[in-house]
Amino acid sequence: MDASVTPLPHSGLCLCQTTDFFYPLVDDPYMQGKIACANVLSDLYAMGVTNCDNMLMLVGISSKLTDKERDVVIPLIMRGFKDLAVDAGTNVTGGQTVINPWITIGGVATSVSQPTDVIMPENSVPGDVLVLTKPLGTQVAVNAHQWLDIPERWNRIKLVVSEDDIRKAYDRAMDSMARLNKTAARLMHKYNAHGATDVTGFGILGHAQNLAKNQRGEVSFVIHNLPVLAKMTAVAKACGNMFQLLQGFSAETSGGLLICLPREQAAAYCKDIERQEGYQAWIIGIVERGDRTARIIDKPRIIEVPGKDRDGELW
Amino acid sequence: MDASVTPLPHSGLCLCQTTDFFYPLVDDPYMQGKIACANVLSDLYAMGVTNCDNMLMLVGISSKLTDKERDVVIPLIMRGFKDLAVDAGTNVTGGQTVINPWITIGGVATSVSQPTDVIMPENSVPGDVLVLTKPLGTQVAVNAHQWLDIPERWNRIKLVVSEDDIRKAYDRAMDSMARLNKTAARLMHKYNAHGATDVTGFGILGHAQNLAKNQRGEVSFVIHNLPVLAKMTAVAKACGNMFQLLQGFSAETSGGLLICLPREQAAAYCKDIERQEGYQAWIIGIVERGDRTARIIDKPRIIEVPGKDRDGELW
Repeated sequence: MDASVTPLPHSGLCLCQTTDFFYPLVDDPYMQGKIACANVLSDLYAMGVTNCDNMLMLVGISSKLTDKERDVVIPLIMRGFKDLAVDAGTNVTGGQTVINPWITIGGVATSVSQPTDVIMPENSVPGDVLVLTKPLGTQVAVNAHQWLDIPERWNRIKLVVSEDDIRKAYDRAMDSMARLNKTAARLMHKYNAHGATDVTGFGILGHAQNLAKNQRGEVSFVIHNLPVLAKMTAVAKACGNMFQLLQGFSAETSGGLLICLPREQAAAYCKDIERQEGYQAWIIGIVERGDRTARIIDKPRIIEVPGKDRDGELW
Repeated sequence: MDASVTPLPHSGLCLCQTTDFFYPLVDDPYMQGKIACANVLSDLYAMGVTNCDNMLMLVGISSKLTDKERDVVIPLIMRGFKDLAVDAGTNVTGGQTVINPWITIGGVATSVSQPTDVIMPENSVPGDVLVLTKPLGTQVAVNAHQWLDIPERWNRIKLVVSEDDIRKAYDRAMDSMARLNKTAARLMHKYNAHGATDVTGFGILGHAQNLAKNQRGEVSFVIHNLPVLAKMTAVAKACGNMFQLLQGFSAETSGGLLICLPREQAAAYCKDIERQEGYQAWIIGIVERGDRTARIIDKPRIIEVPGKDRDGELW
């Protein structure tokens, strides 16, 4: 499960909480703070919990920063984190800061909820479909963007992608990683979701396998479609097996929710989230009778998800 | 405040939580795990909160460990952390593990409490006394113990202390850092404490100053006595101003509670904790009318606190 759920015997409530911390992956400190916050909260949202009562922040300040770098970068990271916490309707009330060789950013999200606020990720049935709320390929985009400054890396991919393609995918990836899964979580209740997980370090298939393993019923998940940031499939292919993107194992940061929904509700779910947020969600697979495993079909359909222009327009 | 307190409007309860993580300081991984756990929980205990509903663990695995070192050391640290959580009547239900240049260990402690379970650290009055529940000097002992293997350091202190003195102080320090402040917290309620803090990185005076600043009434704290691990005062003096032990700024890890207690209750508090746990607590100062500051008197009385023999007997 993405968040721990602890019954609080005396009150009938339960405590849902999660923690996450990692290292910067984008070059905009303020966006990095937002991404870290979205990533922490995402584990609550994956359980259908939309109300976060409190957040704590975990910060490691790199001992290699100059005083000036530190005084510019760290407050921006912290501000991004706090601002997104406020957008999510919660607050950062404490935390811990240490010196560390690497910059570190993360936090803790806690909710005290009614048991009915929590959607346990275990009740999918044959006939459900799988919905994904954010595109894949964030790690490919982040890495490709770094390679713009590393000639021997850039040479490996420049035949399949332009600098502009990479910037657009990178901007869209940042946007996507900093986006809360809160609406996605709220709509899980409206459309009777049977369970979900968020897609992060293990990739879409890794998390699908974890979710499948956790089901009460004898089901398995089959993924037919992979929505990927535009051109990042070509980049991943040009890098050989390095990312394992099409195999489903490319790490994502602050990825979307992978949700099991009743078949007749899924299209309405996707339409509703697009209407409310302006971002697409996709039906990517089905739940069938099976042995609690997950797989991607032989030649999945790749959906090229537009990058982002600097003027904010989708590409 | 040591822990954040967030009212939960619908239930009349409040959410108390804290997080802490740091780097190993003793050479026994299992004890290091216990110390980290005690240190995290201590922030709840400082607020009089004795019931922890859930813990999460934060682990950074050093990229410099060999596979074998990692497979021995990290599970021991985690086991120490978990075992002490169970001793404290709680459980570790999740957390986050990353690769990091430095080994990192810490966690999150959360309690959902009645507001009356929390003792806000702000209600001391002139006439109160200050009680401390663990000896000072843990950092001095830990450093001195490392210096046994560093001749140029050892040469600086060997005139004032024997190797045996250092081992005993180090063993007592480990024991002390791995000890929960839970009984100390429970007795705060029994003896009507007016507020407390736990003594960690800022040293006894640093934390006393923070606590004084947070008081509602116009009070100030005066410290007369410093209970210090035996011989560690001599070691600190031999090192010049390096530790700032007698100035009150030597960092402690998982230190004791510094508690404001009504004068007529303090002796009974100290007797009770010694009866229950076999460890002394000390009246170290007074609360007088003042401007919310704290100070140590000119020549404080140093109480030499016995080290620990390898057979477990106090020295």
